[in-house]
Amino acid sequence: MIIKILGSAAGGGFPQWNCNGLHSANVRAGKPGYRARTQSSLAISANGSDWALLNASPDLRQQINDTPALHPSVDGGLRNSPIKAVVVTNADVDHITGLINLREGQKFSIYGSDRVLATLNANSIFNVCAPENVPRIAFALDRPTQLTGAGVDLGLTVEAFAVPGKIALFLEKGGEKENYGSRDGDTIGLKITDTATSKSFFYIPGCAEVDPPLAERIKGAELIFLDGTLFTDDEMVVQGLSHKTAQRMGHISISGPNGSIAALKPLSIARRIYVHINNSNPVLDENSEARRIVDSAGWEVGFDGMEVRL
Amino acid sequence: MIIKILGSAAGGGFPQWNCNGLHSANVRAGKPGYRARTQSSLAISANGSDWALLNASPDLRQQINDTPALHPSVDGGLRNSPIKAVVVTNADVDHITGLINLREGQKFSIYGSDRVLATLNANSIFNVCAPENVPRIAFALDRPTQLTGAGVDLGLTVEAFAVPGKIALFLEKGGEKENYGSRDGDTIGLKITDTATSKSFFYIPGCAEVDPPLAERIKGAELIFLDGTLFTDDEMVVQGLSHKTAQRMGHISISGPNGSIAALKPLSIARRIYVHINNSNPVLDENSEARRIVDSAGWEVGFDGMEVRL
Repeated sequence: MIIKILGSAAGGGFPQWNCNGLHSANVRAGKPGYRARTQSSLAISANGSDWALLNASPDLRQQINDTPALHPSVDGGLRNSPIKAVVVTNADVDHITGLINLREGQKFSIYGSDRVLATLNANSIFNVCAPENVPRIAFALDRPTQLTGAGVDLGLTVEAFAVPGKIALFLEKGGEKENYGSRDGDTIGLKITDTATSKSFFYIPGCAEVDPPLAERIKGAELIFLDGTLFTDDEMVVQGLSHKTAQRMGHISISGPNGSIAALKPLSIARRIYVHINNSNPVLDENSEARRIVDSAGWEVGFDGMEVRL
Repeated sequence: MIIKILGSAAGGGFPQWNCNGLHSANVRAGKPGYRARTQSSLAISANGSDWALLNASPDLRQQINDTPALHPSVDGGLRNSPIKAVVVTNADVDHITGLINLREGQKFSIYGSDRVLATLNANSIFNVCAPENVPRIAFALDRPTQLTGAGVDLGLTVEAFAVPGKIALFLEKGGEKENYGSRDGDTIGLKITDTATSKSFFYIPGCAEVDPPLAERIKGAELIFLDGTLFTDDEMVVQGLSHKTAQRMGHISISGPNGSIAALKPLSIARRIYVHINNSNPVLDENSEARRIVDSAGWEVGFDGMEVRL
């Protein structure tokens, strides 16, 4: 199985269009130790020819251009694409907007929870992926679903499971007691398994905490890509970028007693990679103390173009 | 007045993600005489500091990254942007999707016809540009509107006018007799005027024909950016890419007795630049006969990063 990080940044990307914070300003100025990042997406393939995307970011056109494996085959028809399926983990704009780039009558499949697909159905702009060419397939949680698209069996299964999280910001309703309108399945993690080799990995780009059921599920895994949005719970508040904590945004922080380094330490996961990294996160500076802490803890910081084989 | 072409390609961009046609394959392979192009958008400014976008393409994040004039000021606040307004000419995905990139609470204004704004209102995903920060302003046709945004007067007026065209593809209804559901104002052209200098230009990225009222309006203009989607009416049919002619898609062709070269020849327009160029258009090959014809006729083929001062 081949896994490519197409985009390793959280919503807004790195730099973010309107951000003059320390890290966005530094990467824009070309400061050493920084690299630009597009928004949150992975591409996966069992055979190297047929691919599924995990989330479709607003930067998808640029990500496809930058990834030769996702170009049309020069030996294929006038219109062809190796992208056969897209799996979306929530309805955040950084995870669904890229679908709008996948128009032009190409056949592929969209997989998501019924709650996320309902958001696509409620927004007519997603009809550029016309349902007669692009079926929208709701998967049940906690059960492996075989990925197929455009008549191709991808040789991969995806098992979606609910994780502690939050509804997409643009769908939030008032009333803090209501958890902003979130319900189970608004945010999901994925377990991807190569049918032939039985190798598997976890992809959880948004997650508010590693609670006991999640810890149990990922224990002993060979590989995980996890929500690395923020390093400390209050970093956006401290940097003056927002009044919201990581928890309020539905993201676990990397550091601290309840952070992901601590939570995954006892779980014997062989390879741990952060994705969905926000422009406020000090790990974006390769020379930072935060980065040293992450490195020392045996974690990796994902970057655009990173490839893992399993 | 400064005018920058952010994106010179039609919907899908160049290359298009799933296109293995001659030109997309050539540009992807790096063949000399070709350059990649992002999707349809201009940026305009009277003072060089405050900018308005004319259309917001799906490639907007990349376009902002590639255009230093659109970066936040390093002397400004933690969040700031020189982009104060966006004017949309229709509800095509290549003209509205970029709005989704302009989130994060930044104040600016969106201008469009009431029909186009109704499409934004009907798609909740555009609420990432929350109306309390980003007012949606419907302009009347045939009357200059002063552009303002985030409390700034841009020193520019925009006059929108209906042109022969078509409704956005994803909004089309069946029934050819109904013109696919189009009404006056679904596709508009813009006349932009610098208030201080009274210099003006026309921007018409989609237009099905130059009828007598349009010819009268643009006669004697100093500068026009015009729909250069297709070179010949049937080129997508001939190339096997679609069953649709330019006319069916609501686009005038460049060549032929009813094409834009012929239509604008008697109108004494000083500078004529094609934008919204489709991946099937042979003018994308700088060594083509089509390109020679366009050059000889005194037209220019717009490209990403092209700058015009007026």
